[in-house]
Amino acid sequence: MKLLETRMAPNPRRVRIFLAEKGIQVPTEELDLMKGELKSDNFTKLNKLQRVPVLVLDDGTALCESIAICRYFEELHPEPALFGKGALGKAQVEMWQRRIELGLLASVASAFRHLHPAMAPLEVPQVAAWGEANKPKAQEMLKLLDEQLAGNRYITGDTYSVADITALVAMDFMRVARVQRPEGLANLERWYGEVSTRPSAKA
Amino acid sequence: MKLLETRMAPNPRRVRIFLAEKGIQVPTEELDLMKGELKSDNFTKLNKLQRVPVLVLDDGTALCESIAICRYFEELHPEPALFGKGALGKAQVEMWQRRIELGLLASVASAFRHLHPAMAPLEVPQVAAWGEANKPKAQEMLKLLDEQLAGNRYITGDTYSVADITALVAMDFMRVARVQRPEGLANLERWYGEVSTRPSAKA
Repeated sequence: MKLLETRMAPNPRRVRIFLAEKGIQVPTEELDLMKGELKSDNFTKLNKLQRVPVLVLDDGTALCESIAICRYFEELHPEPALFGKGALGKAQVEMWQRRIELGLLASVASAFRHLHPAMAPLEVPQVAAWGEANKPKAQEMLKLLDEQLAGNRYITGDTYSVADITALVAMDFMRVARVQRPEGLANLERWYGEVSTRPSAKA
Repeated sequence: MKLLETRMAPNPRRVRIFLAEKGIQVPTEELDLMKGELKSDNFTKLNKLQRVPVLVLDDGTALCESIAICRYFEELHPEPALFGKGALGKAQVEMWQRRIELGLLASVASAFRHLHPAMAPLEVPQVAAWGEANKPKAQEMLKLLDEQLAGNRYITGDTYSVADITALVAMDFMRVARVQRPEGLANLERWYGEVSTRPSAKA
């Protein structure tokens, strides 16, 4: 199998961190977004949506969507469990993963895609007002995370999960997207310091 | 347990259809969006994001996010499997569920929230240009689904899944959101006719 990705993009990084936490090594192949390699015919056959990451299995099956790729590896290598354990534990990880993905990562990505000049050929039409509207949405979600982290070491409790991965990647992407981190969120900063220094964060 | 919901909203309907397919009965409680019941203090304690559905367990635990609630029931009542079977099967359901949710349901919802006058107090700021930009995004995803359904009875193959639920709910919501369905998508229409007549579609 191999993982097709773009190192600079946030979604492939989610998968790399996930694999590093599991101790799984998968060969990767870099595609250059700026050279149009996501628009090539060969890549489009693998993912008609022309997005990375894509996991290509040995029989040629192409799996798209970061979280679907992560879940594939979770099923094959259940430990450490990064999608939670038990019905309630799994549901709570899914709840927070989604809140963070839809409320934070998607908001940061929208600010980036709708405001950054380099994204103009990729996000058609760019709607600057929508990019701006997403900055406070992202900041509000960080405040909710700060409250959640007041009583929890990690986002869903004592155990690191895919929800932490999505939040870390989204927060690091805020710099690129030029979305300011609100000040005074002490629980969030404590958590951010801890997850940023895990070896997987370098993946 | 009880399910707090708003019957007119698309996300609670996803959970109702899911439960009907599983044959699970859960008491529901209707909250009136237009009367501000999602902004009440009591409801905000359950979901700080002030959105439905919320599943309240007997011990008071509140589970938010439709797909997290569905996964909770999938874990407790695995049959019929609506999130797929096996590592690859589960990953493929997740992949399509996400593509449809992010590319179709979210686009239809954005068109509705950013263009419908009744949504002005809820979606601040409304960005009409973003609402309009979402209509072709939703239509493009329907074309991709039509291609996928050329060789499949349901979206991920021979078995009905949560991906079909999200697609059905999104397509029905297009009428409310005034997003036109492209003509000539014969595979999609065949599938839509079939899933619309399942008893669960009335849930």
